[in-house]
Amino acid sequence: MSETNNLTLHTDFYEINMMATYFEKHMENRHAVFEVFFRKLPFGNGYAVYAGLEHIIQYIENLKFTDSDIDYLKAVTDYPDSFLEYLRHFKFGGTIRSAYEGDVVFANEPILQVEGTLCECQLVETAILNMVNYQTLIATKASRIRTVVGNDPLMEFGSRRAQEVSAAIWGTRAAIIGGFNATSNVLAGKTFGIPISGTHAHSLVESFGNDYDAFNAYAQTHHDCVFLVDTYDTLKSGVPSAIRVANEMGDKINFAGVRLDSGDMAYLSKRVREVLDHAGYTDTKIYASNDLDETTIASLKMQHAKIDVWGVGTKVITAFDQPALGAVYKMVSVEDDHGKMVDRIKISGNAEKVSTPGKKQVWRITDTKDGKSEGDYITLANEDPRDEKSIYMFHPNYTYINKTVENFDAEPLLKTIYRDGELVYDRPNLAQISEYAKKELAALWPEYRRELNPQKYPVDLSQKCWDNKRDIIEKVRNYVQQIKY
Amino acid sequence: MSETNNLTLHTDFYEINMMATYFEKHMENRHAVFEVFFRKLPFGNGYAVYAGLEHIIQYIENLKFTDSDIDYLKAVTDYPDSFLEYLRHFKFGGTIRSAYEGDVVFANEPILQVEGTLCECQLVETAILNMVNYQTLIATKASRIRTVVGNDPLMEFGSRRAQEVSAAIWGTRAAIIGGFNATSNVLAGKTFGIPISGTHAHSLVESFGNDYDAFNAYAQTHHDCVFLVDTYDTLKSGVPSAIRVANEMGDKINFAGVRLDSGDMAYLSKRVREVLDHAGYTDTKIYASNDLDETTIASLKMQHAKIDVWGVGTKVITAFDQPALGAVYKMVSVEDDHGKMVDRIKISGNAEKVSTPGKKQVWRITDTKDGKSEGDYITLANEDPRDEKSIYMFHPNYTYINKTVENFDAEPLLKTIYRDGELVYDRPNLAQISEYAKKELAALWPEYRRELNPQKYPVDLSQKCWDNKRDIIEKVRNYVQQIKY
Repeated sequence: MSETNNLTLHTDFYEINMMATYFEKHMENRHAVFEVFFRKLPFGNGYAVYAGLEHIIQYIENLKFTDSDIDYLKAVTDYPDSFLEYLRHFKFGGTIRSAYEGDVVFANEPILQVEGTLCECQLVETAILNMVNYQTLIATKASRIRTVVGNDPLMEFGSRRAQEVSAAIWGTRAAIIGGFNATSNVLAGKTFGIPISGTHAHSLVESFGNDYDAFNAYAQTHHDCVFLVDTYDTLKSGVPSAIRVANEMGDKINFAGVRLDSGDMAYLSKRVREVLDHAGYTDTKIYASNDLDETTIASLKMQHAKIDVWGVGTKVITAFDQPALGAVYKMVSVEDDHGKMVDRIKISGNAEKVSTPGKKQVWRITDTKDGKSEGDYITLANEDPRDEKSIYMFHPNYTYINKTVENFDAEPLLKTIYRDGELVYDRPNLAQISEYAKKELAALWPEYRRELNPQKYPVDLSQKCWDNKRDIIEKVRNYVQQIKY
Repeated sequence: MSETNNLTLHTDFYEINMMATYFEKHMENRHAVFEVFFRKLPFGNGYAVYAGLEHIIQYIENLKFTDSDIDYLKAVTDYPDSFLEYLRHFKFGGTIRSAYEGDVVFANEPILQVEGTLCECQLVETAILNMVNYQTLIATKASRIRTVVGNDPLMEFGSRRAQEVSAAIWGTRAAIIGGFNATSNVLAGKTFGIPISGTHAHSLVESFGNDYDAFNAYAQTHHDCVFLVDTYDTLKSGVPSAIRVANEMGDKINFAGVRLDSGDMAYLSKRVREVLDHAGYTDTKIYASNDLDETTIASLKMQHAKIDVWGVGTKVITAFDQPALGAVYKMVSVEDDHGKMVDRIKISGNAEKVSTPGKKQVWRITDTKDGKSEGDYITLANEDPRDEKSIYMFHPNYTYINKTVENFDAEPLLKTIYRDGELVYDRPNLAQISEYAKKELAALWPEYRRELNPQKYPVDLSQKCWDNKRDIIEKVRNYVQQIKY
């Protein structure tokens, strides 16, 4: 792992300031529920691939203010000693429900829920959002690229352009969840058991001064050879040198491929394919890597470029065209002065930013016959559509868009990961997560999966959930109306 | 620090594969020089602010293959035991020259140089680029925002949208180098001594159910109060509640500010200013935070928005409009079979991508009279313009753009950080770096500093450096021409 285990202070200062207020007002143990959701799918995609949970678990497992943390807070704040002592003995005792990594998720539905004391819910906001926002973004970007690439091998090569170390490490893991096959990053390979990929750079050729000597040296020291052929001239020097070395080495090496890293990939790949085939190397693959993303890959495929293996770097590891997912963490319910849970809403000038109050569950509704998706159905947490023979699903804003569904299966999206501070989730390994993600994506109709202008997947509210939201909006409006200063 | 100290495997697999070839071909101790540079300034800016060196030093200080690293490599590769033993005893013994953090740097000039054995130069490529690319990008973005903000306090609030943990931590440090004043991230505050900022979120107001009770509770538990006033209605509820609490608390609190986080900031800030002034709180500041960047801030300033303190998140911490800097790491010189150093070039189909061969130095040329920048002058490492009475500076592509400079000072940009594996650089603290950055930026003419359409700063080659490049291009062209297969 690329980080120390203790990230307790990886939080926004205001979280701890609010904890101080709750503590001093004797509200630190008030019960609360917060939910994570994002308002808009990234990249114009039709779905997102959820990731980040493994890092969140590692974070929660090591959540503890160290003596040095307390000393620091004592030095830079005027917190009373009693609160610092509270922090020193702080232990996360909350319940976390979450989608599984690899789950397909959508806008405006809870994807993670924290239930516990006000203080513990507040402390973990920043780190949870930091991890979910980035990893879900990258898994989704990777999934778009996978959609375009089809079944070709797809490698993550972006470490040098990643936004610092943990993006390189966790980002490549997220890319694997999204459908990538391997990474160039050795630490990520070691940490998560991801296959590692890569042979040599231009500098190897420059060390020897020419392609032939470099390839020859590489072939004498490695069995599997993918030669980078564009250091001086792909067609005049790189590819002929690679073939000469392969001819000379014979069975002693596996001439696995040549890599193109610059120039007109459509043209070069076709010419290189001819030359390789002509020399009898029909099984030798052509690798491409040069600022690729789903758009350039789709274009190369349209042009029938003869590329077999794709290396994607900057564009996937930074989610270049939209480098942040705007997931937020909102209070949906809190205990009042009388020990009663009351649902909460954040009103906003922008209507689409109004949150949905109440502790909720998301149900993935599928057709019993074909197992395909009918949509997501958000209920209050105490509703269970599996008790019903039919459900009435309607668009939360455009309520005339509605349908009644029968013969359905309903699977809850939010599953219990922590119960009262105890990890109750048996963590799968990355290969299992990646298989799971594939299966979940396959349950979506292709119309939701295409990377350009996908059909909008229904995310609907139950009648009770919708009524609750309407009532609370009404209450808040009345409250604001009657304020007199 | 947010990472374990040992990041030795945070490298691309091909680096270690090349090391294996060098080792087995008995070339592992061949001397080489690599240089880091980027080809294009980000964001259309006129300069970049260099950052990343501190993390690179931490990385180099802990560079060592652990037994567990060796076991991993043994399991997933067919490296011979002799090479694995070589890695087990590997120690970085190279020389690193670098710009200082906070130095203003430009496209197509070396900003970091690694000189040492082929193997050690190769191993460190990925991590160095990862750190320099991200941190320089963020420091530069931050500097653009600082340019627009003038002398107003400027806070980094982006942790929840940062690309994972180390981006949040190192990114905010880079933002400080670029001119920010404080961060919301407590871990970054503790790690680097950055002032931390933040009071409360919407959830505090929701916990109490109304603004007044929430602000009142906060005021009873904190001396410095910045109230977030937009949870329900900024003008009807938030601001009047804040004033009521301030009136009631009197001298017991410092009513430092109110924060606006949604709505029309230009309109709201003016109205809120009037209300605060009218109530006698003329020193109470207005904070703004809502997806701000240099463009929205410039627009708010043009509209005479009454905003005193700026909180910037997503847009700075991800460098949203260009989330990657394309710095590369290129071999410029290498020892040949006869123990002689030969300069190397990477030819490319794109003329602007051709690298400049030879071990180099960059000299910042300033006018002796006013200390202002005349341009950067790149020489071969064995040239020293301080020995000359005048220097002839010319554009490396458009050579008719030229000037002869007399009465100049020349300061080398690349300073020795490691000499033969030993750290010889006395590391400044972040406050010192940030002061230094300010001073260096001030030495640039304002025309290079403006954030929109800046004048192009001259980065010129010495005659010897230019001749060397031309000769080597010629040599490579001749070599490619004569290849016969």
